[in-house]
Amino acid sequence: MAGMKNTAVLLLDCPDRKGIVAAVTNCLLKHDANILHADQHQDSEVGLFFMRVEWDLDSCRLNLEQFERELMPIASSFQMRWKLLGSRKKTRAAIFVSKELHCLADLLQRHASGELECEVPLVISNHPVAEKLARFHGLEFHLMPVTPATKAETEARELELLQRNHIDLVVLARYMQVLSPAFVARFPERIINVHHSFLPAFSGAKPYHQAFARGVKLIGATSHYVTDELDEGPIIEQDVMRITHRDGIEDLTQKGRDLEKVALSRAMRLHIGHRILVYGKKTVIFD
Amino acid sequence: MAGMKNTAVLLLDCPDRKGIVAAVTNCLLKHDANILHADQHQDSEVGLFFMRVEWDLDSCRLNLEQFERELMPIASSFQMRWKLLGSRKKTRAAIFVSKELHCLADLLQRHASGELECEVPLVISNHPVAEKLARFHGLEFHLMPVTPATKAETEARELELLQRNHIDLVVLARYMQVLSPAFVARFPERIINVHHSFLPAFSGAKPYHQAFARGVKLIGATSHYVTDELDEGPIIEQDVMRITHRDGIEDLTQKGRDLEKVALSRAMRLHIGHRILVYGKKTVIFD
Amino acid sequence: MAGMKNTAVLLLDCPDRKGIVAAVTNCLLKHDANILHADQHQDSEVGLFFMRVEWDLDSCRLNLEQFERELMPIASSFQMRWKLLGSRKKTRAAIFVSKELHCLADLLQRHASGELECEVPLVISNHPVAEKLARFHGLEFHLMPVTPATKAETEARELELLQRNHIDLVVLARYMQVLSPAFVARFPERIINVHHSFLPAFSGAKPYHQAFARGVKLIGATSHYVTDELDEGPIIEQDVMRITHRDGIEDLTQKGRDLEKVALSRAMRLHIGHRILVYGKKTVIFD
Amino acid sequence: MAGMKNTAVLLLDCPDRKGIVAAVTNCLLKHDANILHADQHQDSEVGLFFMRVEWDLDSCRLNLEQFERELMPIASSFQMRWKLLGSRKKTRAAIFVSKELHCLADLLQRHASGELECEVPLVISNHPVAEKLARFHGLEFHLMPVTPATKAETEARELELLQRNHIDLVVLARYMQVLSPAFVARFPERIINVHHSFLPAFSGAKPYHQAFARGVKLIGATSHYVTDELDEGPIIEQDVMRITHRDGIEDLTQKGRDLEKVALSRAMRLHIGHRILVYGKKTVIFD
Repeated sequence: MAGMKNTAVLLLDCPDRKGIVAAVTNCLLKHDANILHADQHQDSEVGLFFMRVEWDLDSCRLNLEQFERELMPIASSFQMRWKLLGSRKKTRAAIFVSKELHCLADLLQRHASGELECEVPLVISNHPVAEKLARFHGLEFHLMPVTPATKAETEARELELLQRNHIDLVVLARYMQVLSPAFVARFPERIINVHHSFLPAFSGAKPYHQAFARGVKLIGATSHYVTDELDEGPIIEQDVMRITHRDGIEDLTQKGRDLEKVALSRAMRLHIGHRILVYGKKTVIFD
Repeated sequence: MAGMKNTAVLLLDCPDRKGIVAAVTNCLLKHDANILHADQHQDSEVGLFFMRVEWDLDSCRLNLEQFERELMPIASSFQMRWKLLGSRKKTRAAIFVSKELHCLADLLQRHASGELECEVPLVISNHPVAEKLARFHGLEFHLMPVTPATKAETEARELELLQRNHIDLVVLARYMQVLSPAFVARFPERIINVHHSFLPAFSGAKPYHQAFARGVKLIGATSHYVTDELDEGPIIEQDVMRITHRDGIEDLTQKGRDLEKVALSRAMRLHIGHRILVYGKKTVIFD
Repeated sequence: MAGMKNTAVLLLDCPDRKGIVAAVTNCLLKHDANILHADQHQDSEVGLFFMRVEWDLDSCRLNLEQFERELMPIASSFQMRWKLLGSRKKTRAAIFVSKELHCLADLLQRHASGELECEVPLVISNHPVAEKLARFHGLEFHLMPVTPATKAETEARELELLQRNHIDLVVLARYMQVLSPAFVARFPERIINVHHSFLPAFSGAKPYHQAFARGVKLIGATSHYVTDELDEGPIIEQDVMRITHRDGIEDLTQKGRDLEKVALSRAMRLHIGHRILVYGKKTVIFD
Repeated sequence: MAGMKNTAVLLLDCPDRKGIVAAVTNCLLKHDANILHADQHQDSEVGLFFMRVEWDLDSCRLNLEQFERELMPIASSFQMRWKLLGSRKKTRAAIFVSKELHCLADLLQRHASGELECEVPLVISNHPVAEKLARFHGLEFHLMPVTPATKAETEARELELLQRNHIDLVVLARYMQVLSPAFVARFPERIINVHHSFLPAFSGAKPYHQAFARGVKLIGATSHYVTDELDEGPIIEQDVMRITHRDGIEDLTQKGRDLEKVALSRAMRLHIGHRILVYGKKTVIFD
């Protein structure tokens, strides 16, 4: 996983039938590709086949575009939904945040240490508190206050900013505004949120308060792709922690932060590593 | 925790104010009681104080009844809800089961090995499959088929059977019938159920199917006291396990069994050790 | 994973080079095999490639023996270590146990419920306590007391018994005797033990006492293949549980039993599902 | 746990006998102290009693010094080792770090967010890389390179610096130098280290390499007080995470960082909350 690698990732799903693996691996073999990782999955209930293959581009005769041409007829004959991605072209992520900075600080530290192989050109927030942290890490910071009256206009400015910066992933690191369907539609399966509960339990507002009131013995956090239905998008990662009757709401809030950081950073890492396939409300995670 | 011990347990809750611990410990000290365990809890939000004290009866001048008389004025002056229990008088539990036997087998093996210090005189089931296992462990087995038409009559017979056997705890070890409010009212905070999900997620029927459809990354099990509201009783114990997209419904069902066994047996162990205080929908667990 | 399935499993490892997946999948495709699961792994440090493929035999033109012949030249050309196994031929396991019965009871209940798809013809013990349980499940029970003087002779009788029963897996379910190198040599990678610690911590005798003395905050259990070096065999599965200063040695022992049951039963399930590849001191687990 | 609270914490251990709780609580009651938390523990094996009591000082007639005088005769008569601490006097911690900054960044972010109620006046490192981060958080940074030849002299300068800054806790946040016995002797039970393994497994150098070589299925991290014996000090907190054969050494290193952060920050939080009692090689954690 060294930073200088030059690999291609093929992510695909298609109706399950015989010969898919053979077709793909024969094509790669024919062009002398050295497969580094390959993983498959079948969901027999819905009759779908899923695959992720990663190979070394440096030792190949073909480049990414040439592989794309070679794979096209195979993809077509198997009715694949597919993506071919090169490790050299890094995902460009924008991070949205509100007042709580633990997830942002965690992501930026991981990015600085090389753990998250992507570019993070900018941070957007509806509050000014994150500015100092963003600038410490050398990132642009854009203050975008949101009120009911200005929300549509603000989102338009945000979208413009994202487009101008060629952003292909939006990470909501405890961003407490609900994005409009129009915004979400512009980044399908490209907005990752972290919700501070073990979804589907305690969706909606104030999940730690809900958890405290219900008297659960574990709290959780969930990272998921954002869809139009609040807290209903495909789940990428979840984590939980044991609590006891001794933990008040403040303790839940504080302990939960560790879950949020891990759930969100893992989701971001999986996304930028092209390790997630979405189908319906579910995800296949090739880790 | 050897079986031959002779201890007293005082479980209490009351409005929180100064002097509760001092009053209780002075009373015990005055009568030369050797405290083995003491634990307190305060819920500052609702202003309640909770306490569990266990002391050795063999080395005391007073017996359980005499301690009860000594503690009565203290309990009264602090407006305590309280229970005083002797380890010599063991809980008598009846286990209800349907067709899936893993929880029953697990509980009976734990009981046989001495891990659950209670008496289990009988097993009740709406199906005949558990009979062989119950009899192997030397327990009475009562087949009590339930149909909508006969449910009230069956419950009456069950209640009569429980009363005749001096049962003070009912354990639902994957018993798939809903008990009537009238039945539940006869055993307040004395019926323990295991639900095969991480409540409040996936309450109701077929939780593993619900979990599979939602695409969660962890499955859970929850043991709780039964109240009139289905799957809404005070939670005693919860446990979870990581799953992946590779796990089908059968895998969830099979993996979940290990969670159910642990969640249910721990709840039973906590209950018979007089380690649970219920208030509202929540529990204090003194473990 | 229904019991009546008729599948073939190919398990292999070989020096990593191009074309392995293509060669295997082409061979299967040529004979119209419907691949149900395929999984690969590369250990780049040692330059090894590992693969497990499972396909449906019912819908194939070839039977297991015919596939063996077809695969032989491929295996040879890639210098594979390989096994081809049919789901119809179930593993025959013997369980060894001493005085503590929780693992035995757990395995036999799982077997009875259909969770462990193998045959368990007999239980062997150096103590008589397990007999009743073995017979309840309809198994042969053989009492084989071990003393230093009789050990060699007893092992000879055990080996003869295993051979006569066509046993191909020995499961040590808290069997407290050390098997001789000669015995172990007869069942290479076919004896599974559970050690009641998180190996390599607390190998050897009385691990819960060691854990208590060291003041660890988690206890564990480890299932592994038995080799000549005590507690040094390839690890199959490990699990841990949080403990506190309140837990005495008895509590560790009791809580740890749940870990032992899970670690051992998972290992047995993985083995009989042909999901484990051993190399050196390590295992690849295709689950 | 709001920052402005004014409470006293009594931490004690003594030979176990009757009347300890009564004596302490009577003393507090007499002076009208409102107990906020009380927790006890008995280790029957060694005959020791442990207690932590926290009470509100604002609503009391006595201040901390006066309570100290009142408690002295009780402590004396029960042969207590004891500490009385006021929440207003915050622990002053120095953080030592080498080249890996994830633990330092994590601690400083937690401190900035108010999660760690202590003062952190300075960061000491044998490498310059942490300087920028320390200064961003407004802390002094002291570069203290260590070579075999200069080690004694460097430690002397460090000790002088710690003394001048009234430091009462040293946190080794992945500091890769071994402190000399003379240094350790100056901060008994006041130096917290994080070791990147589940101790006692893989003590010493390169624990992730050791874990990879042994093929364990879980990795861990351990925070502990530093003593003269390397990696043998009393354990405060441990955490683990599941890994698979797919994880190379780099993956272990990266995943393990999350464990290290959690284990170290929890230990620091417990220490500054006066929630740890050490006896022999073990800790009692009142959380």
